[in-house]
Amino acid sequence: MDDDTPTDGDAGLVSLVGSGPGDPELLTVKARRLLDEADVVLHDKLPGPEILDTVPEEKREDVGKRAGGEWTPQEYTNRRLVELAREGNHVVRLKGGDPFVFGRGGEEMEHLASEDIPFEVVPGITSAVAGPGIAGIPVTHRDHASSVSFVTGHEDPTKAESAVEWDALAATGGTIVVLMGVGKLPEYTAALRAAGMEPATPVALVERATWPGMTVATGTLDDIVAVRDAEEIEPPAITVIGEVAATRERVIEFLRNRTADETAVTDA
Amino acid sequence: MDDDTPTDGDAGLVSLVGSGPGDPELLTVKARRLLDEADVVLHDKLPGPEILDTVPEEKREDVGKRAGGEWTPQEYTNRRLVELAREGNHVVRLKGGDPFVFGRGGEEMEHLASEDIPFEVVPGITSAVAGPGIAGIPVTHRDHASSVSFVTGHEDPTKAESAVEWDALAATGGTIVVLMGVGKLPEYTAALRAAGMEPATPVALVERATWPGMTVATGTLDDIVAVRDAEEIEPPAITVIGEVAATRERVIEFLRNRTADETAVTDA
Repeated sequence: MDDDTPTDGDAGLVSLVGSGPGDPELLTVKARRLLDEADVVLHDKLPGPEILDTVPEEKREDVGKRAGGEWTPQEYTNRRLVELAREGNHVVRLKGGDPFVFGRGGEEMEHLASEDIPFEVVPGITSAVAGPGIAGIPVTHRDHASSVSFVTGHEDPTKAESAVEWDALAATGGTIVVLMGVGKLPEYTAALRAAGMEPATPVALVERATWPGMTVATGTLDDIVAVRDAEEIEPPAITVIGEVAATRERVIEFLRNRTADETAVTDA
Repeated sequence: MDDDTPTDGDAGLVSLVGSGPGDPELLTVKARRLLDEADVVLHDKLPGPEILDTVPEEKREDVGKRAGGEWTPQEYTNRRLVELAREGNHVVRLKGGDPFVFGRGGEEMEHLASEDIPFEVVPGITSAVAGPGIAGIPVTHRDHASSVSFVTGHEDPTKAESAVEWDALAATGGTIVVLMGVGKLPEYTAALRAAGMEPATPVALVERATWPGMTVATGTLDDIVAVRDAEEIEPPAITVIGEVAATRERVIEFLRNRTADETAVTDA
């Protein structure tokens, strides 16, 4: 088919679009086009101010700040997507990073299908890869990381029903990237050490990846909590655990990413 | 800093750029700009014909097809990047997907730093996320995948020194995505079953993700090898293992991605 954003008569269309990590230049060409063409853009805060500022205010609808009322935010978003599509709109549902990496895009997609609403998926760059990357940290490396696992730090590793298997993740021998992992850093670094991971394993924290004011702090499994506190690393931030986290030191002098330069002071 | 592609005097600059999975509209805005602005674009076949066709032939240099001679391809690429940068060029090193997800971008970055060559990193969308995504498969899901692990199928799981710990990956309970995993499918599905993973675990194969002629085939850990053979799935393809792989069936009727539509015949 030549037209890749078809609509079914009056049904409208929902585009589930990943915004990437926050730098407007890391939007995809398609995301940029759809943001310009859409009738309505439903979003929360996660795409970040630099990207949201490029969308005319009259077609933006913030579904992240809704509080109270009879609907939870996700239920409200699901209902609103269906409503707008049934009115014949082309709706962009803009999600931070990639819609399907801890983005609940899967739930929204299934809801749309259950309500007979046509939709398309437009992947975005997940900050789980881009955050480490622009900090000079490759999440895989032929010499010392033949796998990489992404988990979310929102899980509480001390509760019995925690869905994250830290023992197994440690046993993979690959890189572990924790999204939204600042607050629970003490718990899961302890869990990884208890699972037998070396205390000297390199760890990096990337705060506000690709955003203005991005900050990177590095340490080891043993001292990263102290580093976090000393450097005042705050959410949103990504944790990278594994030998690859040590790469940054070897290359930082020649790394010319805008955001890498901006962090020179805090990173010294 | 206002200029995010600075150069150091005569040293030139190397931009390590991810092309995304192959659809030119899934290039980032920055990748598109750098491809247009660069003096030279060093590439292999992985970015795919649709993207390579958008770069004027006179500034393309294919470092993938070089055979024989005294340099291995990676050594040649490393040497050529340094050579071109020292001549003062802005060089784009274009890599399929993301430079740091099984892309050997980490090695190239370290080589550049060791030769005092300024470089920047421009992340791209990895096909490990985008391939499943545009096929209607979210790699994470709140209900049934709280982690996702990426591995490469180029590893031989039957050899003693295999770096991929299939037992541990199975024990994570999360989604497993295998890149370049068509040929070794029998070996690692057997390894995962031996590790205790349910034979009924859903599995999907996504061939030529986002390229024209994309094909998706689905089955279970038990029958996916037979499905691969019956559907004649060939490299390049991505394997998705986990409950999320079953999502596609529930949503495919309403999925309107161009490439999803194109696969309607082979996928029926």
